[in-house]
Amino acid sequence: MQERKGQSRVMIENVQPQVDGGLYPAKRTVGERVDVTADIFGDGHDHIRAQVWYKKDGDAEWTTVEMLHVMNDSWKGTFHVQQKCSYLYTVVAWIDHFETWYDGFKKKAAAHVDVKVELQEGAIILKKLAKDKNNELLNAATKLEAPYNTAIEYVLSEEFKEIVHHYPLVEFETLYDKVLPITVEHKKANFSSWYELFPRSASLEGKHGTFQDVIKLLPRVAAMGFDILYLPPIHPIGKVNRKGKNNNVHSEPGEPGSPWAIGSDEGGHKSIHQELGTLEDYKRLIREAKHYHIDIALDLAFQCAPDHPYVKENPQWFKQRPDGSIQYAENPPKKYQDIYPFNFETDDWMALWQELKSVITFWVDNGVQIFRVDNPHTKPIPFWQWAIAEVNKLYPDIIFLSEAFTRPRVMASLGKIGFTQSYTYFTWRTSKAEIIEYMNELVNGPSRNYFRPNFWPNTPDILPWHLQHQGENIFIIRLALAATLSSNYGIYGPAYEFYDNIPMEGKEEYYNSEKYEVKQYDWKRTNRMTDIITIINKARKNHAALQSTWNIHFCFIENPNLLAFVKATDDLSSIVLVVVNLDQHNKQNGYVQLPKSLLKIGDHINVKLYDAMTDDHYTWTQEWNYVEIDPYKMPFHLFKLEVHESYM
Amino acid sequence: MQERKGQSRVMIENVQPQVDGGLYPAKRTVGERVDVTADIFGDGHDHIRAQVWYKKDGDAEWTTVEMLHVMNDSWKGTFHVQQKCSYLYTVVAWIDHFETWYDGFKKKAAAHVDVKVELQEGAIILKKLAKDKNNELLNAATKLEAPYNTAIEYVLSEEFKEIVHHYPLVEFETLYDKVLPITVEHKKANFSSWYELFPRSASLEGKHGTFQDVIKLLPRVAAMGFDILYLPPIHPIGKVNRKGKNNNVHSEPGEPGSPWAIGSDEGGHKSIHQELGTLEDYKRLIREAKHYHIDIALDLAFQCAPDHPYVKENPQWFKQRPDGSIQYAENPPKKYQDIYPFNFETDDWMALWQELKSVITFWVDNGVQIFRVDNPHTKPIPFWQWAIAEVNKLYPDIIFLSEAFTRPRVMASLGKIGFTQSYTYFTWRTSKAEIIEYMNELVNGPSRNYFRPNFWPNTPDILPWHLQHQGENIFIIRLALAATLSSNYGIYGPAYEFYDNIPMEGKEEYYNSEKYEVKQYDWKRTNRMTDIITIINKARKNHAALQSTWNIHFCFIENPNLLAFVKATDDLSSIVLVVVNLDQHNKQNGYVQLPKSLLKIGDHINVKLYDAMTDDHYTWTQEWNYVEIDPYKMPFHLFKLEVHESYM
Repeated sequence: MQERKGQSRVMIENVQPQVDGGLYPAKRTVGERVDVTADIFGDGHDHIRAQVWYKKDGDAEWTTVEMLHVMNDSWKGTFHVQQKCSYLYTVVAWIDHFETWYDGFKKKAAAHVDVKVELQEGAIILKKLAKDKNNELLNAATKLEAPYNTAIEYVLSEEFKEIVHHYPLVEFETLYDKVLPITVEHKKANFSSWYELFPRSASLEGKHGTFQDVIKLLPRVAAMGFDILYLPPIHPIGKVNRKGKNNNVHSEPGEPGSPWAIGSDEGGHKSIHQELGTLEDYKRLIREAKHYHIDIALDLAFQCAPDHPYVKENPQWFKQRPDGSIQYAENPPKKYQDIYPFNFETDDWMALWQELKSVITFWVDNGVQIFRVDNPHTKPIPFWQWAIAEVNKLYPDIIFLSEAFTRPRVMASLGKIGFTQSYTYFTWRTSKAEIIEYMNELVNGPSRNYFRPNFWPNTPDILPWHLQHQGENIFIIRLALAATLSSNYGIYGPAYEFYDNIPMEGKEEYYNSEKYEVKQYDWKRTNRMTDIITIINKARKNHAALQSTWNIHFCFIENPNLLAFVKATDDLSSIVLVVVNLDQHNKQNGYVQLPKSLLKIGDHINVKLYDAMTDDHYTWTQEWNYVEIDPYKMPFHLFKLEVHESYM
Repeated sequence: MQERKGQSRVMIENVQPQVDGGLYPAKRTVGERVDVTADIFGDGHDHIRAQVWYKKDGDAEWTTVEMLHVMNDSWKGTFHVQQKCSYLYTVVAWIDHFETWYDGFKKKAAAHVDVKVELQEGAIILKKLAKDKNNELLNAATKLEAPYNTAIEYVLSEEFKEIVHHYPLVEFETLYDKVLPITVEHKKANFSSWYELFPRSASLEGKHGTFQDVIKLLPRVAAMGFDILYLPPIHPIGKVNRKGKNNNVHSEPGEPGSPWAIGSDEGGHKSIHQELGTLEDYKRLIREAKHYHIDIALDLAFQCAPDHPYVKENPQWFKQRPDGSIQYAENPPKKYQDIYPFNFETDDWMALWQELKSVITFWVDNGVQIFRVDNPHTKPIPFWQWAIAEVNKLYPDIIFLSEAFTRPRVMASLGKIGFTQSYTYFTWRTSKAEIIEYMNELVNGPSRNYFRPNFWPNTPDILPWHLQHQGENIFIIRLALAATLSSNYGIYGPAYEFYDNIPMEGKEEYYNSEKYEVKQYDWKRTNRMTDIITIINKARKNHAALQSTWNIHFCFIENPNLLAFVKATDDLSSIVLVVVNLDQHNKQNGYVQLPKSLLKIGDHINVKLYDAMTDDHYTWTQEWNYVEIDPYKMPFHLFKLEVHESYM
């Protein structure tokens, strides 16, 4: 029996957000809201009051926020995290005898029950609260000792109600048995626009591209509004068992190979592929990009070509077979002969972990802030947990994007243990029902607290079925969805911009994939897609509502081809309505319902809409409003909403 | 970096059963099944093997059970708890290179890939597993070194498959980070039949009843098949502010008052109401009941009449008001002037807790094994947690039934912190949809691990709407439901048996409630209800399938008035099918579907049915079978099923 426990009568259970019982932190970004919910109850009918206590990790003092009863013993309190650091929070609740007394007094007074003793009790509570110091309370106590009717009138006054609200009587409080962590990251973790290109295809003159060529493309990428330029691996490419065009197991002399087959006699993960330039050139690219507010993202692919220096220098990091050969990557009976995976079960694992960490810190020291991690699910999750934590200790602003297109629990776990963002199944969610269900899972499911989605309509590895052999409308639709449903999105740029829709037949892969050859793009060309991307990215910058994935609200609209949703900031200073026609071929129409309650719109509706895509203006005065979308004009609306004078 | 962690590549998450992260134990009873599930996954495509490790608390050695992959990284392993004690369990998983190698070998051999090196690898693994000792494995290793084709044939043999299955290669295993508790209680915690009567109404001769009279009723209660006889409080009843007939605030001289208004100058919670007899009489009742395999349950009502000795002896345990009076129980503006609640916030709470615990142990020492706890939700939950744990330490077989008809989270919490059984909302769940939904919540929801339901169609406090002014059919229907849906059930006996259906109009309470007066029943009388209760309780004893609540499976039957469900033991040695007509007035019919997969019935159906209620026999040879129920004959079937010769 602890001293306090016996008198504390309130139970606190099921406190959220909580990831695996507090083993992992919940994630937020600067400025985001934290809704703390808990089941809180005591015995009997006494009134409970509850607070969230939160603070920055390391601070001495807690900040408190009142929690309110929602329903059925579920309570909620909200605060915003304003700094990039670790926060801690917990929940405190107690039976408040002041409020219990006040509520009982009102009921008794209404029933004309004698309340003489109740007035004395009230005065005692007020004096206790005042602790001989607070004059407002001492004064109130005196008024309860006034003549009977005057005293009753006072207790029933608005003034006294305010006193009850402002002076909780905290006694025998129950402190939730855990202090839970929240990691708050910088805004870019939650709001980023990625453009991927192969630097070797960046040349404007029909040659093998270089970092210098990429620098020349920066104005183009910046004009479209992207803030992350992601380049596939920039390291020396293996010469042994190099892959040829279209993933041929044999390459012709002069073929460039896959950038993901890393390492040769020219160097490994800390070296630069000579044809791209020097480390100095790469650092210059990073610096130049910064002028355009663009971060250069590095690809982190922890695997080795057979001629990678590690193989000679650290053969113990690879699996030796009885015949003296090294184990290839394989998915039996298939072998991947251009790749050796690391053997993470090596007895020398500590040195391996340290070396791989040093790869990351090497590039951070050279200016990289953002990593796109290749297939993290084929390396041990505990390694990533350690490596990301270690890097975060030294450099707290680094973003790690997990390229794990794999089973749901594995993807979720990578988010839990530290990845900042993750590729998602959005790439294959195409129907209205699928999109709503998936968004609901991401936004309202438990993974909301640790899995930050990044929506990609394509990647160099994936030309999904629905884009194959299709026209520009579907490319526009998928782009609009990616960029408005999710605050983090990206495209494998030139292939998307220029509508590359030719697959390896029967596969979701590109024909003549850029992974195995150098491409020549007409980088001077822009088209309708370039214009639309530019407008969308501008809208994403202008409208704070589009800078979150978590604020989505789907609107009723009967037509299954029309998807409509509202995003709004908490203060409603930014409201966006997106309506997308998922049918790339036919005009579709329907009536969309304004979410009046969410937008605090009363009976008199007066909403102005400005379509960012067409500059058209509308005024809606009804709850249900007609929309018609011709995909050959513009397959979607991106409305900014202004709610005028409303009477709730 | 811990020594082992770096090489352990498997993640284990979401292990169930787990109550509040292991803060509370999951509950089972002797012989019950524990299905352990977990999300288990590693990196890449290597094969994982996993085990549940379990043991009795205090044992040195773990017993291991293999887990199998169910789907999508969810795994399951099952064991049975055979002893009444605390168990511990956890989960272990590892990448099994033997199985990975074996699977790859089979695929490569099928694709006619050269497997010379694979054979060498296999021999190495076998020798490693053999540790120079196991001849079966050493012998197998030799066979892999046989001529190429012979060796391949051997690896592909059934014999070798068995070796792979029997010899997991445990390396770098991941141990789940928690060891989770399971409390295993005796069978009665899960299977009990309660009969409630007021001992003061037990007289056969029109007088105030005594324990002697209750002893005379034992053969009657036993003949009906009940194994718990629960008596409302047997302590001296308060004389101050005693309640009269029908809860009148004034009583006439000679009125007996409510037994829940405990304590007078004659004694308190450790005393016996003199009109009932002596402590010796009570102990004799307990002894006599034992001969009939009946336990006597005591009512634990922790509250005091104004003249309870505690009030004088320990005034500090009650809330003093400024005028010197003691605070009544109240629900403003109502006051309950026959009751003082304890003030659990008293500075003297430790002594109060100890005294209340001593009340429990006093009665245990006098032979009581079962307590029905009155309104536990109006006393602090932490007190119950402590008191039940303290009593359990000394007397591990005690059953505490929580009489908390309150909000869901409060009821659930009382189960979590230690109550053995709980009253439920069954009392108000009447339609087919309501019953199925509620059973699904109880059996498949998280509370399955800590909330053990006890179904009561009535109590002295509750005559539910659907029984008011109704005939015997609905009484029979509700009894059949309570006794077959739930393995724990009870009735407020005489009122139910004799169809007392007269309410205080507008309330769900009895008119002329036995709570406030002595009743005279014709205890010699039996009726159709007596007979039906007898048959049902006999069936509950004979059919193990009815001794669990957790094994319910609802069957498809189109008619919304017909509820059909199967219960079966794990080994299918006991199978019961119950079909209830929820319509008390009309004949109903429909086709009920046999759950073939659950009952392991193949294409040739041959099921014998014996109706315990009518002794009728049937043979079903179809999946869908016609049933017709006339409520005026018998409102339900209670079939024992025998499944004959079936071919899956």
